[in-house]
Amino acid sequence: MRSIYCGKLNKSHVDQQVELCGWINKRRDLGGLIFVDLRDREGIVQVVFDPEVEGLMDKANALRQEFCVQIKGVVRARPDSQVNKDMATGEVEILGTDLTIVNRSEPLPLDFNQQNSEERRLTYRYLDLRRPEMSDRIKLRAKASSFVRRYLDSNEFLDIETPVLTKATPEGARDYLVPSRVHKGSFYALPQSPQLFKQLLMMSGFDRYYQIVKCFRDEDLRADRQPEFTQIDIETSFLTSDQVRAITEKMIREMWLEFKNVDLGQFPVMPYSEAMSRFGSDKPDLRNPLEIVDVADLVKDVEFKVLSAPANDEKGRVAVIKVPGGAVMSRKQIDDYTKFVGIYGAKGLAWLKVNDLAQGVEGIQSPIAKFLTEDVINGLLERTNAQTGDILLFGADKRNVVNEALGALRIKLGLDFELTRLDQWAPLWVVDFPMFEEDDEGNLHAVHHPFTAPKGITAEELEANPANQLSDAYDMVLNGYEVGGGSVRIHNNKMQQAVFRILGINEQEQQDKFGFLLEALKYGTPPHAGLAFGLDRLVMLLCGTDNIRDVIAFPKTTQASCLMTNAPSVANPEALKELAIAVAIASSEDAAE
Amino acid sequence: MRSIYCGKLNKSHVDQQVELCGWINKRRDLGGLIFVDLRDREGIVQVVFDPEVEGLMDKANALRQEFCVQIKGVVRARPDSQVNKDMATGEVEILGTDLTIVNRSEPLPLDFNQQNSEERRLTYRYLDLRRPEMSDRIKLRAKASSFVRRYLDSNEFLDIETPVLTKATPEGARDYLVPSRVHKGSFYALPQSPQLFKQLLMMSGFDRYYQIVKCFRDEDLRADRQPEFTQIDIETSFLTSDQVRAITEKMIREMWLEFKNVDLGQFPVMPYSEAMSRFGSDKPDLRNPLEIVDVADLVKDVEFKVLSAPANDEKGRVAVIKVPGGAVMSRKQIDDYTKFVGIYGAKGLAWLKVNDLAQGVEGIQSPIAKFLTEDVINGLLERTNAQTGDILLFGADKRNVVNEALGALRIKLGLDFELTRLDQWAPLWVVDFPMFEEDDEGNLHAVHHPFTAPKGITAEELEANPANQLSDAYDMVLNGYEVGGGSVRIHNNKMQQAVFRILGINEQEQQDKFGFLLEALKYGTPPHAGLAFGLDRLVMLLCGTDNIRDVIAFPKTTQASCLMTNAPSVANPEALKELAIAVAIASSEDAAE
Repeated sequence: MRSIYCGKLNKSHVDQQVELCGWINKRRDLGGLIFVDLRDREGIVQVVFDPEVEGLMDKANALRQEFCVQIKGVVRARPDSQVNKDMATGEVEILGTDLTIVNRSEPLPLDFNQQNSEERRLTYRYLDLRRPEMSDRIKLRAKASSFVRRYLDSNEFLDIETPVLTKATPEGARDYLVPSRVHKGSFYALPQSPQLFKQLLMMSGFDRYYQIVKCFRDEDLRADRQPEFTQIDIETSFLTSDQVRAITEKMIREMWLEFKNVDLGQFPVMPYSEAMSRFGSDKPDLRNPLEIVDVADLVKDVEFKVLSAPANDEKGRVAVIKVPGGAVMSRKQIDDYTKFVGIYGAKGLAWLKVNDLAQGVEGIQSPIAKFLTEDVINGLLERTNAQTGDILLFGADKRNVVNEALGALRIKLGLDFELTRLDQWAPLWVVDFPMFEEDDEGNLHAVHHPFTAPKGITAEELEANPANQLSDAYDMVLNGYEVGGGSVRIHNNKMQQAVFRILGINEQEQQDKFGFLLEALKYGTPPHAGLAFGLDRLVMLLCGTDNIRDVIAFPKTTQASCLMTNAPSVANPEALKELAIAVAIASSEDAAE
Repeated sequence: MRSIYCGKLNKSHVDQQVELCGWINKRRDLGGLIFVDLRDREGIVQVVFDPEVEGLMDKANALRQEFCVQIKGVVRARPDSQVNKDMATGEVEILGTDLTIVNRSEPLPLDFNQQNSEERRLTYRYLDLRRPEMSDRIKLRAKASSFVRRYLDSNEFLDIETPVLTKATPEGARDYLVPSRVHKGSFYALPQSPQLFKQLLMMSGFDRYYQIVKCFRDEDLRADRQPEFTQIDIETSFLTSDQVRAITEKMIREMWLEFKNVDLGQFPVMPYSEAMSRFGSDKPDLRNPLEIVDVADLVKDVEFKVLSAPANDEKGRVAVIKVPGGAVMSRKQIDDYTKFVGIYGAKGLAWLKVNDLAQGVEGIQSPIAKFLTEDVINGLLERTNAQTGDILLFGADKRNVVNEALGALRIKLGLDFELTRLDQWAPLWVVDFPMFEEDDEGNLHAVHHPFTAPKGITAEELEANPANQLSDAYDMVLNGYEVGGGSVRIHNNKMQQAVFRILGINEQEQQDKFGFLLEALKYGTPPHAGLAFGLDRLVMLLCGTDNIRDVIAFPKTTQASCLMTNAPSVANPEALKELAIAVAIASSEDAAE
């Protein structure tokens, strides 16, 4: 029914007969002629219906927005005065010679000429996706994932599928469970990642694996999370972490060259400890020039407990952010920032304005000035290289509170003061993560996952002193987003058992949950390492949107609902009976709508 | 750690230094030398450790089967007398100069030199996948799916992901359900196919969609079914069924050329009615020359109710299969075939041997000969062109019983009498399926699915006379396997509602289940058609295996279990509580193991 896509027409087609299929994007009647913009997935072209072409005007006159039509016509150049430079096909138009209304449309429940609420857009997703802005994103996603496949195929990676109906894993987030009909009372889990399967594939000798694969996390949803998300999952044998990073960094660099015409250059590599110290975050946005500067040593002896107590506590941190030109902040603004850091547990936000550096201590304004000696003040000014007009904002608390509060504040300040170079790209690798983190009860948890190898240490050494060891893990960060993460894996039964023990997983539990892995590690497991990228996030960055739902054809809301189909929904009681499960909602809780 | 894969070594590498990584496939000690076959994913090469190379023999002597090693060495040509022609790398060997034992292996629980039970192979899947026979299949699968993607990408199809957590559909098989934590008491369903989503993508204007996607069916499992399976899912707008078939047939033809070096030629197209009549099946294996021949008209008046009753019943069928040379069948063999057709509901298996055609009726041997007049016998011989030495086997019953029984018998006879040309390829399209089939209570069911368009008929005409209408559906059949199936879809709200009504889905149910589809059909839906291939089956055929588990890295058993991980398993009671569900096993039923 079609000889060419509308969006592909240009001057080279002038005088050709064409058949087009698409939708009426717009209609204008002018001087007895009817002009329509015909839209298909590749673009829009103008079609003119002229009364001189017999027998067409009645049909053309019936056309309304979003009617689906087939049009035959002749391509003609527009006169210079009518060339539309905002339109890719703006140098030509089609003189309609035949018109078939393939399907009519009722007036749309979305107005394409204005903002629609996201709720409405998601309810009528199939219509919202007709907007070129949206369909371009979905097309870019298809092209990006095809690009990734070609890159990995050409690097001898094998695309191998792993199960979706699998066994529950103990990773951070919660599993979606699927009741089994055959084994009543038993459940499958949807994978949070194919982690163990890809490791087993290395044990099978496949050497280089990838998969672009759906993963699932049943957790509280944030703006950039979805209950199901897509991972570019990669695993290799016999490569060091440097080599894995080199291969995958090259992929991202080539991707950005292809899709953004941007050379990301070689990615800087930063230890976790440095990232936390300078940016309060393990995924710092390096487009933001603000840094967090440690000042505990300067304030150890001040008579202000808020500063001196954490400065003298080995689990504490005292640090400042210097905002150049920030002395203009009003009391109200400072109050707002104080509330903001409060979200992250900070109990206040001390500040110090450098109103006039030339006046020395006299030129300083600060509610805590009375606690600070001239030496301390000079020390702070020197350490931060503060200039007239700058402000220092203090964080003083437990180390993780300061990191979270100042880390978040840094991002906010960067945007508010227009310091973050939003038009740039800032990739980096964060490496040398700690193996474990301690919770409030003193239990250790894996920072990556329990299959991550420690760096340069034996199982015995690790067990003797687990708390301060580093793992051979790495995250790829781009503009403050963690776009990928991975590690060298444990390939040795003894080390794996040691890590399980450190994590408090007893022998029985090890067998129940990971018996197959421990068994598999006995038979000549190769050293292996891998990584997973979040495809949704990569595409989000390529598209320049910060809403992950924009790059997913049929996304769920932050409440994990599909507004279009109304999933999830109440199940057929017969079906539940066959699955041997019953809904058990405690009376105090709300039932599903 | 590696400079080249073992399997890629050949004479062109002679005198080169190489670094290899892999597993000890075999070890032989001979004349003071140690020979090992080193295996990686690309193949096997022989490595020689010679005492003349200092300091290696102790380590080499420690090598056992499946040790993971890194070997450095020099490639050298084997003397002519030692060239191994059964080995791709058999013209060369490596003189080992350095050896690192990367990881040791305990003795394997599988014996690679003999058959292992499938249970054992599935339990130790990661080891079974080391066998080149198995890993070659997984590699072929990766290459096949990459091939499909390249074909579809180059034909302007867009790879678009659809949700896995979705809404229950009413298709034939049963849904896997996933309880929602956020909406307690509500459930997602895992998709049996992305059918409605791909139709909605056409309504969005994406025009050509594909996805290689996991689908799920919670039904009784047969040898060639898995609870999760992979579909090459395709949908197009503005194409006729002929055009969709042409594009997809070309893909399969090019695939067979690429992977089997076989030209499948142009696929014959056969109406469903002809397939059922000649082969008793809608997925006939055309490599089998046997056909089912209707003879009801010949036996309408015989005094043998078993034949004459169905011959006079419009829902009955009387037909024969002629087996050339089949008159040699023993009584025992005929008894076995009689039992065999009994499985399909046939109450017996009348037969007629042509012992000597020249003797006329005298040369005929049959338990029912006394009921058959000379005319009837001659009619049968003529219709089937039976020759001396042939046998006719009768089916007489309800039409579907005869089709099933003789259809299955035909396959069995083709194999037993070595008539089926197993070394050949026989593709075809089956088209013109009925829209509906009637169950025993007289209710109509969709033969494909309720979104399939009828062929050349209005909604009013369809509703007036639904029982005998054809759909614009098509199945691709290869060697008796349905490898793909699809249809033109309904793109019109009125037609869709008519079909729902015919299927007994009332207004309320239409709104609850398909409200979004009926709504979407109001806004200029393009005509669209598509198809889905079973990737597992295609790869199975490419690999020449008839066990679908052979082409899936981590398959489930026919009981839908994973023997390696022990999924499904009993869930954490805390997790169930959070999901607001309880296990409710009736006391008479068995609990999960």
